[in-house]
Amino acid sequence: MTEFELIERYFRRPARNAVLGVGDDAALIAPSPGFEIAASVDMLVEGRHFFPGTDAEALGHKTLAVNLSDLAAMGATPRWALLAFALPSVDEGWLAAFARGFFALADAHGVDLVGGDTTRGPRNLCVTVLGEVPAGRALRRSGARGGDSIWVSGKLGDAALAIAHQSGRIRLEGADLVDCENALARPAPRVALGLGLRGIASAVIDVSDGLVGDLGHVLDASQIGATIDLDLLPRSSALERQLGGAAREIALQCLLAGGDDYELCFAAPRARDAAIVTLGDRLGLPLTRIGIATAQHAGLEVRDATGRPLERLPHAFDHFAP
Amino acid sequence: MTEFELIERYFRRPARNAVLGVGDDAALIAPSPGFEIAASVDMLVEGRHFFPGTDAEALGHKTLAVNLSDLAAMGATPRWALLAFALPSVDEGWLAAFARGFFALADAHGVDLVGGDTTRGPRNLCVTVLGEVPAGRALRRSGARGGDSIWVSGKLGDAALAIAHQSGRIRLEGADLVDCENALARPAPRVALGLGLRGIASAVIDVSDGLVGDLGHVLDASQIGATIDLDLLPRSSALERQLGGAAREIALQCLLAGGDDYELCFAAPRARDAAIVTLGDRLGLPLTRIGIATAQHAGLEVRDATGRPLERLPHAFDHFAP
Repeated sequence: MTEFELIERYFRRPARNAVLGVGDDAALIAPSPGFEIAASVDMLVEGRHFFPGTDAEALGHKTLAVNLSDLAAMGATPRWALLAFALPSVDEGWLAAFARGFFALADAHGVDLVGGDTTRGPRNLCVTVLGEVPAGRALRRSGARGGDSIWVSGKLGDAALAIAHQSGRIRLEGADLVDCENALARPAPRVALGLGLRGIASAVIDVSDGLVGDLGHVLDASQIGATIDLDLLPRSSALERQLGGAAREIALQCLLAGGDDYELCFAAPRARDAAIVTLGDRLGLPLTRIGIATAQHAGLEVRDATGRPLERLPHAFDHFAP
Repeated sequence: MTEFELIERYFRRPARNAVLGVGDDAALIAPSPGFEIAASVDMLVEGRHFFPGTDAEALGHKTLAVNLSDLAAMGATPRWALLAFALPSVDEGWLAAFARGFFALADAHGVDLVGGDTTRGPRNLCVTVLGEVPAGRALRRSGARGGDSIWVSGKLGDAALAIAHQSGRIRLEGADLVDCENALARPAPRVALGLGLRGIASAVIDVSDGLVGDLGHVLDASQIGATIDLDLLPRSSALERQLGGAAREIALQCLLAGGDDYELCFAAPRARDAAIVTLGDRLGLPLTRIGIATAQHAGLEVRDATGRPLERLPHAFDHFAP
């Protein structure tokens, strides 16, 4: 199969929302008048972001999901995507499954695949997403103010727990294993939440590298501190079980700094607490108030059940850490 | 050095043309009213698109240049870029040189780097470029008509000749070697030509995979044929010398299907021949009329000096060819 046949067979779809889709030197898209374009790119590398042998359909889903999560964190509506990938060889079964996972999520969000590039090489998946947001209404990291409530969606740490299991550091079983592996393989980008937070949240980030690091970025950008309560952090029963056992330290690391959560962490004025609860109910998505922003100190303070700050916070994931 | 320090040190620049540049979940850009966005992505893999040990500054240039070439072929003005890359390790000398090459070309074209992603992995460089073109005025591949002149900018085949030398298939020396290696390492994207061709050309493509294949895409998209003359194809004295020697077959392959040229090949009504000559003079860029589009036959016919069609045309480069 040639490169062109491969694109034709698996990745050329009618562009419903584009002026011109796959097949020319560049795609053409027409932004809505009065809107800004939000643009983000993420690169997933085999052996680094996913294990060799990872299910191709799940990988197709996740490759797009992690990008949509970035748009969600801006309050942008996803519209278009470009997909570049390197593959060690042409495996039609793999390609068909990958495309199935990718397009299922793209269709669910009305995203057009408008361009891409394919080549041979060590497996690498690089997606650029483009979304739209009314001019001036995007949700940045930099707007949190002292007294704002700090919130997080969904649950934290399950994906990291699955990685800890797969790399042999802990042992999960039964439904716990299934749930955590599903959280790792099929994160749900919180697009509807991001849209709902426009006009409510003062600062938003998606939790991709772990809560401590990502909330830290919000605090740095907003030039403010925050105190959150460990006991308030939303977690699954699987993670709760690990917290209560021999692997407590690992579970704590997963909860606070595990990464791969793709939940949204956001700040909002306390006066909007009720509106946020209502939003969570409407979306059927748990939204948990985990603490408060403060101008009294810099950085992030995490309090334990006794109200004492943890002395050492785990580090965020860093791709270039030694 | 952490991932964030790396970005901060080498890739964070003030965004002159963006609402919000590097440093949030997504960049924000404001398209000009009445313009469409042209978007393209290219992935360069070490060992596939460039040899290990390739000069990092040249690679920074080329990584962006091949993308700008796609925008040039659409008649779009380059505005923004996103850069995702995987590196086997953090090498500050390499990063500084790569960034220097990348930003020198970006600055020359007024392009803002607005986003990106960095990770550890086999060396892989993935750039997405976004440009602007007045709505409805982009140059597509599909507009060529019978009787149109077929043109190509610059010279063809030198980059492929350099690869043939580097892989030991031919031997270049002195100025010939310098010129060909420069053509390979530092292609000049024909952005000004693309802009000048708006309203003149009926179809445009950039020659990245070789003239035969790329002009073939124009003919397929336009549902038309063409006849071009081998003797008219613009080539360097280096390539001319190889054509006259023992390596004639290889040189012919480089000229017709070598790839990595990043010149523009375009069709335009014969009535615009004079306007195109004037445009080439204004840009100081040779534009050569190499043949004519025809509705009399499908596909591409290449005639030799005697007017006889070549029996077998070399293939375009295909990344997934066996």
